[in-house]
Amino acid sequence: MREVVIAGVGMTKFGRSEKGQLELFGEAAMDAINSSNLKPEDVQALFLGNSAGDMDEGQTVMASHAAREIGLHNVPATRLEAACSSSSVALVNAYMWVASGFRDIVLAGGCERNTASPTPVAMRIMNTGPHHRYEAPTGITFPGIFAMMAHMYAKKYGIPLEKLKEAMATVAIKNHKNGAKNLKAHFQKIIGYEDVYNSIMVATPLQLYDCCPISDGAAAIIVASADAAKKLVDKPVQIIGFGQASAGGLSTQRDYTLPIAREISSKMAYNMAGVTPQDINVCELHDCFTIAEIVASEGLGFFSPGDGYAAAMRGDTEIGSKIPINPSGGLKAKGHPVGATGAAQVYEIANQLRGDCGPRQVEGAKLGMTDTLGGPYASIVNIILRRRW
Amino acid sequence: MREVVIAGVGMTKFGRSEKGQLELFGEAAMDAINSSNLKPEDVQALFLGNSAGDMDEGQTVMASHAAREIGLHNVPATRLEAACSSSSVALVNAYMWVASGFRDIVLAGGCERNTASPTPVAMRIMNTGPHHRYEAPTGITFPGIFAMMAHMYAKKYGIPLEKLKEAMATVAIKNHKNGAKNLKAHFQKIIGYEDVYNSIMVATPLQLYDCCPISDGAAAIIVASADAAKKLVDKPVQIIGFGQASAGGLSTQRDYTLPIAREISSKMAYNMAGVTPQDINVCELHDCFTIAEIVASEGLGFFSPGDGYAAAMRGDTEIGSKIPINPSGGLKAKGHPVGATGAAQVYEIANQLRGDCGPRQVEGAKLGMTDTLGGPYASIVNIILRRRW
Repeated sequence: MREVVIAGVGMTKFGRSEKGQLELFGEAAMDAINSSNLKPEDVQALFLGNSAGDMDEGQTVMASHAAREIGLHNVPATRLEAACSSSSVALVNAYMWVASGFRDIVLAGGCERNTASPTPVAMRIMNTGPHHRYEAPTGITFPGIFAMMAHMYAKKYGIPLEKLKEAMATVAIKNHKNGAKNLKAHFQKIIGYEDVYNSIMVATPLQLYDCCPISDGAAAIIVASADAAKKLVDKPVQIIGFGQASAGGLSTQRDYTLPIAREISSKMAYNMAGVTPQDINVCELHDCFTIAEIVASEGLGFFSPGDGYAAAMRGDTEIGSKIPINPSGGLKAKGHPVGATGAAQVYEIANQLRGDCGPRQVEGAKLGMTDTLGGPYASIVNIILRRRW
Repeated sequence: MREVVIAGVGMTKFGRSEKGQLELFGEAAMDAINSSNLKPEDVQALFLGNSAGDMDEGQTVMASHAAREIGLHNVPATRLEAACSSSSVALVNAYMWVASGFRDIVLAGGCERNTASPTPVAMRIMNTGPHHRYEAPTGITFPGIFAMMAHMYAKKYGIPLEKLKEAMATVAIKNHKNGAKNLKAHFQKIIGYEDVYNSIMVATPLQLYDCCPISDGAAAIIVASADAAKKLVDKPVQIIGFGQASAGGLSTQRDYTLPIAREISSKMAYNMAGVTPQDINVCELHDCFTIAEIVASEGLGFFSPGDGYAAAMRGDTEIGSKIPINPSGGLKAKGHPVGATGAAQVYEIANQLRGDCGPRQVEGAKLGMTDTLGGPYASIVNIILRRRW
């Protein structure tokens, strides 16, 4: 397979929007197309990640509608759905169309308008991730699923719950601090420990500030062959590896504190890229809840199992420290428009590798990684990017 | 890109089922895996087409759940949605993973349980195909969309509506005759002109027997490298070309009687395969309504524009005649479990090329083609298969 790069990236502001999901996608897509010095008619295929746009806005076959609305004339247009990892899966298949030599310039991205539905409906929509027959009928929700993860983590490693809560709060504070430097973030507000501890309890031990919001937004990436990209832009970022793995529902997990899909997916990505966790300079990972960031920082191999909470307390994941995690603000502060999240992670890493992140820049970053989790640890995708120059 | 083949195929009976969509998919998938002399753990990735399983059964990230339930251990598992063309798109991307050399044995297919919802809800779900902002609010439904196609066809070619209705009835009668020879068909009942003319009017000029049913069912295909397949089975069927194109909604169509997406998609498939319409020996195409078969038979180049209705009357599309169309019974009689339809078309063509179709066999078929249409002419996929021996 041939070398594949990112020519350009685009993203809307995340937050609450009056725009529809297709308008949001169009905004991000045109941003990516323009920043690649392309015109819409140069794009040869579209891969669109979206989790619930049929339930939220009543739209199926939406990739076709999206392609038409931004002037991609009659190209193959495909929607992919893997809950929160939808647009990461879109990127993987865009990569394959280019790596195989089948197409040279492909647009991949995602969009979601989570606030289109009133909260109780949005909750029901989010809850289509667990197995509809064996899990959803128990009444379990995602805060409950990740609360169990926190309890199991504390128990497995013999950590007092209050100490784990402090580590989780540290994650929230860091991600809000990073998000405050990101003009596209849903929340651009610095918080402290008291804000977390005084917030409402959602599912013990997770308080409101341990939970990411659901947001409206879109992100888009131009995936191109190295040959095509060098005629377009000065700083194409290489895609040197990806991993994708599945695990079904909760009942089939081995250990909530080390999801099997992440173990397999990250190993696949590292092997394909020929790098190790220690080589990664910056990572955007799936912090849908603060405990999820701690667990992912171990699952990706940055810290040994049971050390992730201590690493957060030590500040090892801050910008400028050992392995900066979620410099964008992560899902926690940047926001989480479900189907857009994976592409937004790639947007941040590509900009980090280009040195375009201003006050939240990770200096000298050469290798970056994303981690996106969909459903009840059901689908995990990792992508590894490299600066070529 | 390297040679890609179909090692084995599987399909449930189509009709009304008490089984869930994941159970239906599991049945078809195990059928495909067994007929390929594989075990589930040999499958390296899953691509699952499904249109509305989130709305019908409350399940997102379903490819991961599906993979787990049939013992595909932690493989990449991706759901693709393009309305009625969902599983054709799944096949296209499975093809790409194998053609690129990235994986050797991939499972692709689709499932749908359209009868999970009561009819008024099912109608609303089907109606998420038109553009949710510009088209759906007008109240238009798919019978209305294809009724317009019939009126425009009659007007464009100066055909009296009664004559066109007779041609459409001829299509229905042929497909029911074929379906009566297919034990997996939803309807296995021979009908005559009076049955069509006496059936209720749905959207003039389309009567009940001009419309396909919506069904429950699943189909699955093992896509493999030629090298991997020759160790498994005696009669692998080659995938020698595919096409995929999009066109957005109704308001952006040039001519309802010659959908632009089909023109582009079929040309792409013919070019890739290096064949012409005249080379095709058997075709399964998207007869969601009888007029859709007539229009598709022209769009694919089997008949010149305006001659499709006359060709149907002449019997040119019967088994044993010029170009047998829908020997399985088509969507009209075999049934239409939306997300499964594209894979079911490939199931039929693969079996036709192998000579495994018994009383509905197209003798000596060497080249076959599928045509799947999703949404308001929004997404069209064509796949061309060849017998190697």
